[in-house]
Amino acid sequence: MLINSIPQRTIRESGTEPVRVVVLDQRNLPHKIEYVELQTFEDICNAINDMIVRGAPLIGVCAAYGLYLAAFSLKDLGLDSFQTKLKEFTDKLIATRPTAINLRNAISKAIEFIGHFNSTEEEVHASLKYARNLYENEIDCSRKIGEYGVKLIEDIYQNKKSTVNILTHCNAGWLATIDYGTATAPIYLAMERGIPLHVWVDETRPRNQGAKLTAWELMENGVPCTLIPDNAGGHLMQHGLVDLCLVGSDRTTRTGDVANKIGTYLKALAAKDNSVPFYVALPCSSFDWSLLDGINEIQIEQRNPEEVLYVDGLADGKIQTVLVPPLGCNAANYGFDVTPARLVTGLITEHGIFKPEEKELNKLREIINIKG
Amino acid sequence: MLINSIPQRTIRESGTEPVRVVVLDQRNLPHKIEYVELQTFEDICNAINDMIVRGAPLIGVCAAYGLYLAAFSLKDLGLDSFQTKLKEFTDKLIATRPTAINLRNAISKAIEFIGHFNSTEEEVHASLKYARNLYENEIDCSRKIGEYGVKLIEDIYQNKKSTVNILTHCNAGWLATIDYGTATAPIYLAMERGIPLHVWVDETRPRNQGAKLTAWELMENGVPCTLIPDNAGGHLMQHGLVDLCLVGSDRTTRTGDVANKIGTYLKALAAKDNSVPFYVALPCSSFDWSLLDGINEIQIEQRNPEEVLYVDGLADGKIQTVLVPPLGCNAANYGFDVTPARLVTGLITEHGIFKPEEKELNKLREIINIKG
Repeated sequence: MLINSIPQRTIRESGTEPVRVVVLDQRNLPHKIEYVELQTFEDICNAINDMIVRGAPLIGVCAAYGLYLAAFSLKDLGLDSFQTKLKEFTDKLIATRPTAINLRNAISKAIEFIGHFNSTEEEVHASLKYARNLYENEIDCSRKIGEYGVKLIEDIYQNKKSTVNILTHCNAGWLATIDYGTATAPIYLAMERGIPLHVWVDETRPRNQGAKLTAWELMENGVPCTLIPDNAGGHLMQHGLVDLCLVGSDRTTRTGDVANKIGTYLKALAAKDNSVPFYVALPCSSFDWSLLDGINEIQIEQRNPEEVLYVDGLADGKIQTVLVPPLGCNAANYGFDVTPARLVTGLITEHGIFKPEEKELNKLREIINIKG
Repeated sequence: MLINSIPQRTIRESGTEPVRVVVLDQRNLPHKIEYVELQTFEDICNAINDMIVRGAPLIGVCAAYGLYLAAFSLKDLGLDSFQTKLKEFTDKLIATRPTAINLRNAISKAIEFIGHFNSTEEEVHASLKYARNLYENEIDCSRKIGEYGVKLIEDIYQNKKSTVNILTHCNAGWLATIDYGTATAPIYLAMERGIPLHVWVDETRPRNQGAKLTAWELMENGVPCTLIPDNAGGHLMQHGLVDLCLVGSDRTTRTGDVANKIGTYLKALAAKDNSVPFYVALPCSSFDWSLLDGINEIQIEQRNPEEVLYVDGLADGKIQTVLVPPLGCNAANYGFDVTPARLVTGLITEHGIFKPEEKELNKLREIINIKG
């Protein structure tokens, strides 16, 4: 997608021996557009942990390159030591963001993919190949999610014959993926097809990913949008000002319970209460097929309370941080919540739109098993 | 209630001829504790409009003093001109905050109270008497709301035998009234009675009244509390971490629909979904008996979008303002939303706790008509 009218991606390769990656540093967006080269496995872990990169699909790809860099650093060991050591690195990677299932999926599939060669060299080579495949695959997923999702927007437009208002939470935008995004993919495709639309962007406290990332990427790509406090969506839905809710997911159970940025559940409740369709766009890599009950089984990260207490933004041309509540105030910072399947209208995946029901999702699982 | 361990009120009289008022300036709380003397009718209008004072009950009292100051400034006119001019001032006062029904109620009752004397001097005198009565009455209301509400907390404690967790939104604290508060009155009384409790404070974007005011006043008065993003309440309720929601109201219909700070509706939905009792504490002056359908009939103020775009707080010992989203970003800023009566467990008033149903509230109305 576009930054300053130039097509960009959130991550790209640079150099050789080892191949490094350059990522868009998402921490100071929208006020500073900077790229960082991640040269080592530790760089990758820090980038995920510090949220230089964020968004489940992007984290997955980044982690795959991290595994490659780890493998590369171990290439001179014997095969047994190589595999033991690589396992340790794997655990470190998974610990960086426990909620993002894509990361765990990406890593365990990578281990499967690379773990049966007869030399470390081949394994290193396979780990790079895996990362590259995943990279291309994520772009392909986003594009397909867009193609399935845009039909929903087209249908609303056909009925309404005026601007389609979409509400989104957090950033399930191209910045959370490699390109197109998940929740934003249908929006960008609708724009391309000339459907008049407007996006209500939840600012998404405490990290303000809506204000800082989603509003920015929509503006950079010419999509009309309005920033709102997270508190506003219910009121808008009560008054017919939202035609469709479209969010992403960090992890979805085989029954269709959706873990996503904290606050998603509240929007889903409001959507249900006002008969507004509530769709979740996600690549199949965001499913956790082992889970049945999202609310009780998904571990929710608690992040640093300082993210709640302090807000950063632009002042006098510099990024500054202000303390909002009284000094010494306690705060809690739950990263995600779980929207029960009963509140979700449908799951938009790269293989089509599915109802959030175990039986329906079993069909999706079969498709994945066949197509790989 | 206490500020720096000293009992204070949000508004007090100062001087004579005319009597002025000194108010706690709530704009720079909690980082600056300042008092402002309001000397003229215009000062009062500005104080309400600029949110130097806020909170429906406090606005009502402040407006009553405003009317007195207007009357005082007109005292040398003939009785007819006095009354015509006073009507103009009245309209100006009401226009400062259209959603706060207390303001309109206070003013129309004041006009009733003062409008049948034979001299401007008597009318001026009556307007001051009215303001003073309202002042004492609001304190009395808060205390009684506390007494009715504390029983709910006691009951929960009796069942649970451990810390009672209460979630509140915005500031329906003593800062929104003269003393005790509305939603906080039961909390302060529970503290006095030694009931172990803990308050989850919604930060309440965009103006952060929860972070800046509620957290501060609870901390100043020794109430254990934790600040949370507005997005978090649903997750907390799903996990049994909230025993009671307790909020205020800016205007409530005769059917029990509750207008309150934007985002209240979302918490009420989550409370319903998780069987958490959701109570609204309000003085009877916050009822608008003329209204039947809150969602369609209550005019919702749209405030300046800059309140969404910019956040202020403490940096380097000074209050500074930062821009969070990209420069040029659109924002919408709806001040309130309406929680339909079906989501409200009960309304805690100075005359007892009532179900949010027209039939029940008619009984309350009869009590008010008898007691005045």
